[in-house]
Amino acid sequence: MEGELKPMDAEQLREYGHRMVDFVADYYKTIEDHPVLSQVEPGYLRKLLPDSAPDKPESFENVLSDVKTKIIPGVTHWQSPNYFAYFPSNSSTAGFLGEMLSACFNIVGFSWITSPAATELEMIVLDWFAKMLKLPDFFLSTGQGGGVIQGTASEAVLVVLLAARDIFLRKLGKGFLEKLVVYASDQTHSALQKACQIAGIHPENVKALKTDSSTNYGLSPDLLSKEICHDIANGLVPFFACASVGTTSSTAIDPILELANVTKSYNIWLHVDSAYAGSACVCPEYRHHIDGVEEVDSFNMNAHKWFLTNFDCSLLWVKDRNALIQSLSTNPEFLKNKASQSKSVLDYKDWQIPLGRRFRSLKLWLVLRLYGVENLQAYIRNHIELAIHFEELVSQDMRFEIVAPRTFALVCFRLLLPCGFEDRTNDVNGDLLQAVNSTGKIFISHTVLSGTYVMRFAVGAPLTEERHIDAAWKLIQDQASSLLEKL
Amino acid sequence: MEGELKPMDAEQLREYGHRMVDFVADYYKTIEDHPVLSQVEPGYLRKLLPDSAPDKPESFENVLSDVKTKIIPGVTHWQSPNYFAYFPSNSSTAGFLGEMLSACFNIVGFSWITSPAATELEMIVLDWFAKMLKLPDFFLSTGQGGGVIQGTASEAVLVVLLAARDIFLRKLGKGFLEKLVVYASDQTHSALQKACQIAGIHPENVKALKTDSSTNYGLSPDLLSKEICHDIANGLVPFFACASVGTTSSTAIDPILELANVTKSYNIWLHVDSAYAGSACVCPEYRHHIDGVEEVDSFNMNAHKWFLTNFDCSLLWVKDRNALIQSLSTNPEFLKNKASQSKSVLDYKDWQIPLGRRFRSLKLWLVLRLYGVENLQAYIRNHIELAIHFEELVSQDMRFEIVAPRTFALVCFRLLLPCGFEDRTNDVNGDLLQAVNSTGKIFISHTVLSGTYVMRFAVGAPLTEERHIDAAWKLIQDQASSLLEKL
Repeated sequence: MEGELKPMDAEQLREYGHRMVDFVADYYKTIEDHPVLSQVEPGYLRKLLPDSAPDKPESFENVLSDVKTKIIPGVTHWQSPNYFAYFPSNSSTAGFLGEMLSACFNIVGFSWITSPAATELEMIVLDWFAKMLKLPDFFLSTGQGGGVIQGTASEAVLVVLLAARDIFLRKLGKGFLEKLVVYASDQTHSALQKACQIAGIHPENVKALKTDSSTNYGLSPDLLSKEICHDIANGLVPFFACASVGTTSSTAIDPILELANVTKSYNIWLHVDSAYAGSACVCPEYRHHIDGVEEVDSFNMNAHKWFLTNFDCSLLWVKDRNALIQSLSTNPEFLKNKASQSKSVLDYKDWQIPLGRRFRSLKLWLVLRLYGVENLQAYIRNHIELAIHFEELVSQDMRFEIVAPRTFALVCFRLLLPCGFEDRTNDVNGDLLQAVNSTGKIFISHTVLSGTYVMRFAVGAPLTEERHIDAAWKLIQDQASSLLEKL
Repeated sequence: MEGELKPMDAEQLREYGHRMVDFVADYYKTIEDHPVLSQVEPGYLRKLLPDSAPDKPESFENVLSDVKTKIIPGVTHWQSPNYFAYFPSNSSTAGFLGEMLSACFNIVGFSWITSPAATELEMIVLDWFAKMLKLPDFFLSTGQGGGVIQGTASEAVLVVLLAARDIFLRKLGKGFLEKLVVYASDQTHSALQKACQIAGIHPENVKALKTDSSTNYGLSPDLLSKEICHDIANGLVPFFACASVGTTSSTAIDPILELANVTKSYNIWLHVDSAYAGSACVCPEYRHHIDGVEEVDSFNMNAHKWFLTNFDCSLLWVKDRNALIQSLSTNPEFLKNKASQSKSVLDYKDWQIPLGRRFRSLKLWLVLRLYGVENLQAYIRNHIELAIHFEELVSQDMRFEIVAPRTFALVCFRLLLPCGFEDRTNDVNGDLLQAVNSTGKIFISHTVLSGTYVMRFAVGAPLTEERHIDAAWKLIQDQASSLLEKL
């Protein structure tokens, strides 16, 4: 690449592309050599890189060497088999190949005409996925609804919130914005709160309904119903509710069907956020967790979490695509074209926040075809088995407790402190998390449930095997022993 | 990949990765063999693909064969040297390698801790780029401001609009939302209108100020000033203005400095959208088009358009990062960590709409290092030279006219009709565009300026050479001749 600038020379791309493939394969081969959680200090990289971009081209060797020595130490290795934090972000060979293909075409698929295959493959693959999840027919693109790939679950909940908001404001008038009320449990992902901020919903009208261990942190339909009646009596306008299947803190499950029975009688838009657990619902034995989905207005799951599809790839289905389009469409002259004007095509630009969009359906299509549904189900089941194994290990050590029921592949647990030290339990669990993570050997994260500090052990990285679970548990036990000794 | 599921086996990734690199290189090598604008009919793909995902894995050969025979016919080839529509979307060897690396790590970089290198490289590379553009120091991350990679210019304008909205609403109270007014020219990208819809700005308070050929479609500061005074007198609250440097229709340029002189006296947030033309401003001889940027609140340009960085990579700088953070931050327990709590790091999740984010700075870093600033300037200049060449060709054919001044690499032109046929000029130009595009030999797009239908010829694909310009012009001439004969 030295000397003459060749921005896109096929043979140069071939040569360097092959070298990058080897780099990537070697990275995965040796991924366990790196601390899974980066151990660098804030500001480390500025000390290692120059203050300005180079005037002259640098060699690929130098850049790759910098990736190894300067970038990788600052990478937290989400693909490491020792990664158990947050929720997983799966890469896979099929997903990686899909990203390559998408970067190759490098289209900006805002309208059908900008690459018909991008729009149509997305419609088809989302229909396939809807069938895998046994979603109701009205979510298929062959009816009034359809599926779309959003970047993230945050964007998914934002676009449906906007669609619902605008349905109500068109009916009632713009002035009613201040009266609109949103409902969800206090376990709902912060993305909903952010979406409400963006959409201009009054902060006091975003109701985070209290949950506790009596419902395993699921939202009570009675509570929802009471709150709605109360708000209506006060002149407010309930318009949107978000149910979660598999919350971030503890994979809690809101009872969709019962909630839908409440929301339907008020014409409230009911959205289901199943960003994490949606993947498991592809297995028949877990599908019942989304029973009632035939009564909701929109449904979301992230193929980029636990479904081997590289980030980002968040799948959203809506019952009425016109609601989205009415809220999000623009029609500038410079984008007009025969196909769009004829209304014979979908233009996904009107289903999302940005105008431009990548050809993301390719990677999901490759994942589905190269692995096949049965293997993908086996992949999910294997992680759940590994989580059950971890749960059993925790249960066998009386110093620990499982804090919330394990439903999928997340185990919520904590260290119990001996008599007399109970008031330090939260702090010591925080210390334990820090101690474990600062070894660089595993990475786990935490949450707080009803005031209790809880460690989260989320199985789901593609390379994780039973031996990694065993080693992780031994590390946690050892660090706990050492902390308990110092009490 | 047949048989046993290996979601991520390093040797399997190596094998298939190498094959995909060859596929990609061969694609670029033969890209001119395909019609640049896909010629398929709506619904073509559903007839070619099965109704549901396969239960069993399929072979890589079969999938790749389907890419060739079923997907590629539906691709509009943005990387073709014969692509002259909209604005370019550059792929490059460096950008492609960056995408591979980003897909390899596959991190979800919402907070610093999730991969410190991702946050820090983004800060550094945006600082580099700010210096290349000679942006004021307050846009550097070392001060109160900073740069961030957004997906698209749509998201860039949305986040700054929200930041500005919330500054005003915090001061005035939520009830003032209906009073807030946004200003821009009628040439401003539709992304602003969409952002206003999302943010709940009253549609009547989104002022698209009229422009015409007397200012080359640039916004008049006097008109802005008058409109603001008028609105204030009517009890409205001006809070946001968007200036464009290089509009989508004709690369028109709003006079930033003069506009800033107006907006500053009312504390109006002034955003500059230079999505396309920002790339050219890296060349000293074009930098004057953003003179006055030292007086604005935010500045945006798309490295994914004309700067060899694969989509998506939209660069946004803000003067006051806290304004963004106050508007877009959430702080759920499950994301809390020592580094974030200590405030010693930036968490880019609070600068954008989604929570999750890809490691996008890698590709921009690779582009800057592997090409170097001088070559990148030469790349831009070459396209502008090619556009000048096209402009000259058009000027030499008296049947055509240049409709708006060419400033960068977009030429706006149209066919003139003989005496007696003038009232059909717009229609015939539309027909000419259709005729040209339906050959599949080149792809151009259109706009309307002051009621005049205009063809847009945007040079900027990495593989375009003078011979492609010449061939394109000959095609346009031939199709025009044939249409004129039929008049």
